[in-house]
Amino acid sequence: MDAQLENLKYDVGGLIPVVVQDYLNNEVLMVAYANREALAKTLETGKVHTYSRSRGRLALKGESSGHFQLVKAIFTDCDKDVVLIKVEQIVAACHEGYRSCFYREHQSGAGDWKIVGKQMFDPAKVYGK
Amino acid sequence: MDAQLENLKYDVGGLIPVVVQDYLNNEVLMVAYANREALAKTLETGKVHTYSRSRGRLALKGESSGHFQLVKAIFTDCDKDVVLIKVEQIVAACHEGYRSCFYREHQSGAGDWKIVGKQMFDPAKVYGK
Repeated sequence: MDAQLENLKYDVGGLIPVVVQDYLNNEVLMVAYANREALAKTLETGKVHTYSRSRGRLALKGESSGHFQLVKAIFTDCDKDVVLIKVEQIVAACHEGYRSCFYREHQSGAGDWKIVGKQMFDPAKVYGK
Repeated sequence: MDAQLENLKYDVGGLIPVVVQDYLNNEVLMVAYANREALAKTLETGKVHTYSRSRGRLALKGESSGHFQLVKAIFTDCDKDVVLIKVEQIVAACHEGYRSCFYREHQSGAGDWKIVGKQMFDPAKVYGK
């Protein structure tokens, strides 16, 4: 395995958080988790792979939507326990149709988060039912 | 407590990952963890507070260095299990002296991560010994 990936600090479950960022405007698109295999696949294919905790398996980001994330650069932090990947995002990152998963903003004094993102596609059409 | 913070999904240990981003150029500065109390303090004071897992307590970011993070906007993602905070960063985010904690880049075929960040201060001088 790639020595640099082996060098990272994975948690007790073998996972590491991954921040995915648009390489053009630095927008944070999503935060997911990866294991060693997902990172190795990401390096090998040039497309972001994650470990889906809900599905309990490796997942190619965009596998059903075609909204892949093409890897431009990979970084890690001072503690080597988080990975940051800069990508070219095809269409949108969020399965709810938004460019970024971070489409809700805190509003002082309000009861709920405010949707500030712009929807790029209709999830019902892309994923079907 | 703020209804929007109550609305987030904290993990079994009561923590949620927090991505901190420069509000001017969108550089990702660090990833840390917060609990309800840290987020409430962040809202109340306008300065990022985290929960330090290694020290087992609430921590004001910059408490010993003076390198505070002044809150500009707070976001959450589609699953409401990650928080993103845009900040004005005083001096630098990383305790190792770099502007961002993500100062190491993966180099294809190399044995180790390459330092690509620029050091903004000398940690020995700021934190003492």
